[in-house]
Amino acid sequence: MHTLYFAPGTCALASHIALLDAGAEHELKRVDTGGGEQRSPEYLALNPKGRIPTLVTPHGNLTETPAILAYIAQSHPEARLAPLDDPFAFAELQAFNSYLCSTVHVAHAHRMRGTRWADDPVALDAMKKKVPETVSACFELIDTEMLKDPWVMGETYTIVDPYLFTLADWLETDGIDPARFPRVVDHRTRMAERPNTKKALAEQGVG
Amino acid sequence: MHTLYFAPGTCALASHIALLDAGAEHELKRVDTGGGEQRSPEYLALNPKGRIPTLVTPHGNLTETPAILAYIAQSHPEARLAPLDDPFAFAELQAFNSYLCSTVHVAHAHRMRGTRWADDPVALDAMKKKVPETVSACFELIDTEMLKDPWVMGETYTIVDPYLFTLADWLETDGIDPARFPRVVDHRTRMAERPNTKKALAEQGVG
Repeated sequence: MHTLYFAPGTCALASHIALLDAGAEHELKRVDTGGGEQRSPEYLALNPKGRIPTLVTPHGNLTETPAILAYIAQSHPEARLAPLDDPFAFAELQAFNSYLCSTVHVAHAHRMRGTRWADDPVALDAMKKKVPETVSACFELIDTEMLKDPWVMGETYTIVDPYLFTLADWLETDGIDPARFPRVVDHRTRMAERPNTKKALAEQGVG
Repeated sequence: MHTLYFAPGTCALASHIALLDAGAEHELKRVDTGGGEQRSPEYLALNPKGRIPTLVTPHGNLTETPAILAYIAQSHPEARLAPLDDPFAFAELQAFNSYLCSTVHVAHAHRMRGTRWADDPVALDAMKKKVPETVSACFELIDTEMLKDPWVMGETYTIVDPYLFTLADWLETDGIDPARFPRVVDHRTRMAERPNTKKALAEQGVG
């Protein structure tokens, strides 16, 4: 049994969809991020970083979406969610996930989470202002250089697909017209039609 | 043969040490980041992100330190640089690398690379000002909650060790006294004594 601590609208959606894709037995626990539950002693005991998501596994607790996604794929090899027998292909997949985590998500976070990196209100406004430019630059690169077809890594659906879907769904709230990135939009549509995507969104109360 | 495109003082050092640890045949190419070579058409053809490092492998090009490190470990299993047969232990290692990449390195980058996220000079100053606080918070967590002994993951040296060493070496330039994090300092000392660390630093011209 796995327990995914999630909040709607966060990158926990990627791990949630991947758990469904893997057929992994799991339950969901919603964290009240609006009320600051992620900084409660109970949650910090699970995940001292105080961030979402946390995946409680039979072996211990995991954090960080790229690590959780690779764990789901590796511990459910029969689901074929990553090229587990090809170190280079696996590394290409991991490079995509790392880019989503450390560049795309970070660019987006400067809109609402600027206080992580500055205190001055002028700085927070300046960060917000630049988000459409920085996030667009990321998706421009993804659209023109990184994204294959029909799935992110090519013919085969992998754990990168729900992660890109999750972050691409934030484009509108970042003030960006997704139509600028037609291949990302196609991918988003393809993902939205998958039963596991619909199920995850419904289970999170946002479907 | 592998070719590592690096610049001294960057996180490419982690991949460089790991290549030596793996006994992987490799050559080094120094990128003149001061002269903007990472944005040259030649470099962008290798790595459209325009970032350091890039690892050219016999199979294709890789970017993103966590992906490169896992690739080196997986493609050289005899070097035992990661728990390759234990998906949970491998995920714990990957979670550490992901934290270094997406939180610690990003916190540090707000000192010199603030223009990635804001244009206003007031914002750039505010970001710089907060770096000692944000980077210290990361290393406080690493020191008290995450770091095992004698190596990051415990008894066995892994690909996380050169990555933590690389980022911990930036503490002083971020205006932070490393003595606040005694276990990180011990780890740094242990790493600095390893022949492959000395060799990598010498090959980069900074040893």
